[in-house]
Amino acid sequence: MSVSRAERDAMRRAFELARRGPRGVNPQVGAVVLSPAGSVIAEGWHRGAGTAHAEVDALSHLPADAARGATIVVTLEPCNHTGRTGPCALALIEAGVARVVFSAEDPGVHSGGGAARLRAAGVDVAAGLLAEEGVALIDDWLVSVRLGRPFITVKWAQSLDGRAAASDGSSQWITGPAARADVHERRAATDAILVGTGTVLADDPALTARRGDGTLYEHQPLPVVLGTREVPRDAAIRRHPHEPIFFDRLDTAVRELRDRGIQRLFIEGGPTVASAVVRAGLADEVLAYIAPVLLGGDRLALTDIGVPTLADAPRLRVVTVEKLGDDLLVIAQPVTAAGRFDAAPDSTTETEPAAPDSTTEKET
Amino acid sequence: MSVSRAERDAMRRAFELARRGPRGVNPQVGAVVLSPAGSVIAEGWHRGAGTAHAEVDALSHLPADAARGATIVVTLEPCNHTGRTGPCALALIEAGVARVVFSAEDPGVHSGGGAARLRAAGVDVAAGLLAEEGVALIDDWLVSVRLGRPFITVKWAQSLDGRAAASDGSSQWITGPAARADVHERRAATDAILVGTGTVLADDPALTARRGDGTLYEHQPLPVVLGTREVPRDAAIRRHPHEPIFFDRLDTAVRELRDRGIQRLFIEGGPTVASAVVRAGLADEVLAYIAPVLLGGDRLALTDIGVPTLADAPRLRVVTVEKLGDDLLVIAQPVTAAGRFDAAPDSTTETEPAAPDSTTEKET
Repeated sequence: MSVSRAERDAMRRAFELARRGPRGVNPQVGAVVLSPAGSVIAEGWHRGAGTAHAEVDALSHLPADAARGATIVVTLEPCNHTGRTGPCALALIEAGVARVVFSAEDPGVHSGGGAARLRAAGVDVAAGLLAEEGVALIDDWLVSVRLGRPFITVKWAQSLDGRAAASDGSSQWITGPAARADVHERRAATDAILVGTGTVLADDPALTARRGDGTLYEHQPLPVVLGTREVPRDAAIRRHPHEPIFFDRLDTAVRELRDRGIQRLFIEGGPTVASAVVRAGLADEVLAYIAPVLLGGDRLALTDIGVPTLADAPRLRVVTVEKLGDDLLVIAQPVTAAGRFDAAPDSTTETEPAAPDSTTEKET
Repeated sequence: MSVSRAERDAMRRAFELARRGPRGVNPQVGAVVLSPAGSVIAEGWHRGAGTAHAEVDALSHLPADAARGATIVVTLEPCNHTGRTGPCALALIEAGVARVVFSAEDPGVHSGGGAARLRAAGVDVAAGLLAEEGVALIDDWLVSVRLGRPFITVKWAQSLDGRAAASDGSSQWITGPAARADVHERRAATDAILVGTGTVLADDPALTARRGDGTLYEHQPLPVVLGTREVPRDAAIRRHPHEPIFFDRLDTAVRELRDRGIQRLFIEGGPTVASAVVRAGLADEVLAYIAPVLLGGDRLALTDIGVPTLADAPRLRVVTVEKLGDDLLVIAQPVTAAGRFDAAPDSTTETEPAAPDSTTEKET
């Protein structure tokens, strides 16, 4: 792949333009049109599902025939798909563009193939310019396309012995300020945050992402409540910068959040909701904030997750262990034959026979 | 403190001699007698409670008056206490020893004060030679003297969510080979290992310390069984190199093991025993081997530890987190006003008010 300095600079500009667009069902894409001499003659970016793609947006700023012989530099492979808009590959061919430089490949079953179509029409195509940055730009979108749903992180705080609260229910705070600050930072980096009605009723959470001084981070996740119980009119969650969304069922919530373009979903929801998500095989990542305290008793961070025997248990891989003040944060992801994004229970990693009468890990 | 090269060499030799003696109620002590010219004329070590102390043992190898004007180099401050043997300080004075060089100070309420008594009798005393090594030699003994009982380590293996087994009881193996090898290494470094009868009946453990190839480590911990249920005649534990000891009650076990000179006690005992030890405030150290697996259900690594509310929970300090294969080992010790060796529940570290109606850690 041979690219000019002007094309490389244009790609960096296209990344900036892409970020102006929203995160959502469609990826963030930016495009820059260069004259044959290498000067920028138009820019464009994608403003979300149903609006023009970045390439078409850029072309729309040019007079007819002004793109003839031009080069277009775009952060994602031009699509080859007729959706709510026509295929960009065709639009570029029709506009007489001589050369297309793109960064990330389009992995879509329906939308992919744009580069091949362009080449077949005699357009010069250079693929993979600054591809690492191009992929990173739409990493979450790529993952959600692969999963067919948002990437789901389940977070809970627990004592070392796995309790979410003491016997009387007291739990404020099991973990310390550093762990709580970490949670708020992660809230600010997610698209939506889901809790159960039980947590809303018991704790009246605001579900905002706040700095240590109480001020709000610029980005606030969409608050989502799961459950059938009534949430009071004066609940703190109703004063969230975004209108909360309510769902009765987990599967409905996941599907509708996907359709709204939620790429990253953070489940903070209380033991019932966390257990339901794990049981459904929907936990792509677990964040266990572990406080070095022992509680005993029956208020568990996870309740029943539908695992009758050890061989059926979801095995995880510890990705990182971090010390946050006095606490630990263990980040783990499912280990399965299908790879990190398939969290369904899997028995391939456990081959030792299970002893039916054992009360604890065998000491031999 | 001014010491000669001969005295320093003699102290290193005394450490070697000390290690010939048994770990037990009394500390391991070694002694070397040097002539005024600096040559070794006698050696001795302590062979356990009721036998001669190291200094007296060394002197016993010399003809009468041969120690007059000599220097004695000893790993622990000579005692000033009449127990089953007379005070060493007096024996040294009577033997006409001119100079005493020792390493660690004797912290004993009854046995301490030997150096002062020697000095009062005109003996030249040099204290603290290679003191770090001298203290390390009897570290466990010093701790058990301070505690008035063995230093107690409670070990358990758990899933990330705090379970010791799946719902059907299957638990072999939650943790992997690296974690199990680590347990065996630690068994080989402890004086006794205690399990409950429930674990014996369910798992029939050998309670030996074994290398990866199945061979036994040189040192084998004393096997101890706690509980009232009958242990079968053909239980594996009965084939342990040491005769197992049985106790009905935890407090009796701890007291009698102390009286037998057990300095380090390893509790591997199943959830009931582990919980009883934590509840009694006897856990000086917790080793939680955490497997990155989720189990749910009701087979918990710790059951009830008598903590009604968060403010009463024993707070720990994470000493280390180690990755062992796929698993984590979290080593934690109690944090209390009284310091690391007092594991009794303590509310001084927790000042936030507890919310009685909370079901999980507050998400606000």
